[in-house]
Amino acid sequence: MKVVALAGGVGGAKLAHGLAQILPPPDLTIIVNTADDFEHLGLHISPDLDTVCYSLAGIAHPRTGWGRSRETWHALASLEELGGPGWFRIGDRDLGTHLERTRRLDAGEPLSRVASAFCKAWGVGQRVLPMTDDAVRTIVRTNQGDLAFQEYFVRRHTVPRVEGFRFTGTEAASPAPGVLESIADAAAVIICPSNPWVSIAPILEIPGIRPALEHKRVAAVSPLIGGKAVKGPAAKMYSELGIEPSALAVARHYGGLISGFVLDRVDAKLQPQVSSLGMQVLVTQTLMKSASGRRRLALHVLDFLGSLQP
Amino acid sequence: MKVVALAGGVGGAKLAHGLAQILPPPDLTIIVNTADDFEHLGLHISPDLDTVCYSLAGIAHPRTGWGRSRETWHALASLEELGGPGWFRIGDRDLGTHLERTRRLDAGEPLSRVASAFCKAWGVGQRVLPMTDDAVRTIVRTNQGDLAFQEYFVRRHTVPRVEGFRFTGTEAASPAPGVLESIADAAAVIICPSNPWVSIAPILEIPGIRPALEHKRVAAVSPLIGGKAVKGPAAKMYSELGIEPSALAVARHYGGLISGFVLDRVDAKLQPQVSSLGMQVLVTQTLMKSASGRRRLALHVLDFLGSLQP
Repeated sequence: MKVVALAGGVGGAKLAHGLAQILPPPDLTIIVNTADDFEHLGLHISPDLDTVCYSLAGIAHPRTGWGRSRETWHALASLEELGGPGWFRIGDRDLGTHLERTRRLDAGEPLSRVASAFCKAWGVGQRVLPMTDDAVRTIVRTNQGDLAFQEYFVRRHTVPRVEGFRFTGTEAASPAPGVLESIADAAAVIICPSNPWVSIAPILEIPGIRPALEHKRVAAVSPLIGGKAVKGPAAKMYSELGIEPSALAVARHYGGLISGFVLDRVDAKLQPQVSSLGMQVLVTQTLMKSASGRRRLALHVLDFLGSLQP
Repeated sequence: MKVVALAGGVGGAKLAHGLAQILPPPDLTIIVNTADDFEHLGLHISPDLDTVCYSLAGIAHPRTGWGRSRETWHALASLEELGGPGWFRIGDRDLGTHLERTRRLDAGEPLSRVASAFCKAWGVGQRVLPMTDDAVRTIVRTNQGDLAFQEYFVRRHTVPRVEGFRFTGTEAASPAPGVLESIADAAAVIICPSNPWVSIAPILEIPGIRPALEHKRVAAVSPLIGGKAVKGPAAKMYSELGIEPSALAVARHYGGLISGFVLDRVDAKLQPQVSSLGMQVLVTQTLMKSASGRRRLALHVLDFLGSLQP
């Protein structure tokens, strides 16, 4: 069964890694959010792409959820000693990725081709596609004004109160080569347990992607468990936008797009309400604490997709 | 006695370090070649400025003559794993310097202000000035065509046969703030044992610098000992340009500009011929094998300068 996964950073990378443990590499395509990308220190940084690729390559940091394993921090320490900005943590090995990506982009290679070359070098056999080769950027509207995503997320530690989101550049953006084709070829699409507001929404806003998902079997895994995000500001965003954060809120969020929804056992009581939205529901353990936990969730989700009506 | 030293990379950095062990910091200004600077991986790299500053700060690599002590190479290894260019060796701590320099230049700071801020952060009390804030670049004319300096020097290992040199951008360049003032204030100027063709020549080509040296006490230390360069391609360049490489050739090179010349003991026999050029001559050990060797040479050169006629 050919599967496409839509993914942001950590949660998406974990489920993608689980799927990669089951599906043959040619059967899995991961379409990754790039609206978190930004220019910093003259480098083009693609946090979600790197998190997904590092995870699939087995070189992701085992605990932080971002960055690389066996990492050192000498370049950043040297830069900070000179008064440079250290708020965005870039390790030495990670820096090599950003330098080479920036070099290739500056030489005219599109991001999707860079991602493909990096996957090959890292021994990643799955297809990892940026959602677009065009510059799309998340702007977080807050009580402290409009903030670029990393400014909000990393520099200000998600403290400003969220009032909404904008994704600049979407109107003029096209899906990266392979994105629409891989969706068309897929028997099913999984929306990973990533932030619906800032990881999945930008992917869905790229012209052509949402229509391509219609008449597909699409299932989403809730990134909220017991009303809380495993990582990141998703729950906080729902609250600040006046919506009680819960898996039910996520299911409503994806209403009209998905036919299946995956709830954690902790949220089993929400099953009737989610079902009443017209979705089939899978209740299982969605928290992925280990490689085997990722594999187990992936297996359950794949079984569930097989049972879904398109 | 206020002293100005004109310096390129390794040899210049060593003598500057020797002078810094003797003179009070406000009495020493080092004017550094920037025609070796180049853009690589989107970074502005200033090899000679860094070599001089790292040496004065006590963070230079003790053996290589370039780069930093206690260096690691993870970023470059990561970049090379992705197929990126590793021919110019940049360590992780060194990379922090280039990233922060590039960030400041991109924000509009002139190179001289960046150098001054870096010296302050590294605890370097001496004044280290780039020769200019403008872009001046050495082009090496060779039998394989015109080559940017680092292309010739690092990437092609000085193999191409030299036919001449051009320094682009000199006509429009101005001395960096403080350069002409420090020369005017100095009791004496030392031309360090740096490459006359590619380290000292570009400094002298910046409009205003050569005239400022007239009527000054100026002494040069030969970078050639026994007809050979301690490091780098100076001797090879003389040969390929049809000049027998020797300290005498260097003295002739600087004829009309200097009134004193420092020969190594190995070349003591050249003393009469150098004297016949109208220069006073100091014969001493010029090879600087250790910090104390740097200090000893600096002491002898300072004594010699005191005895020179302007």
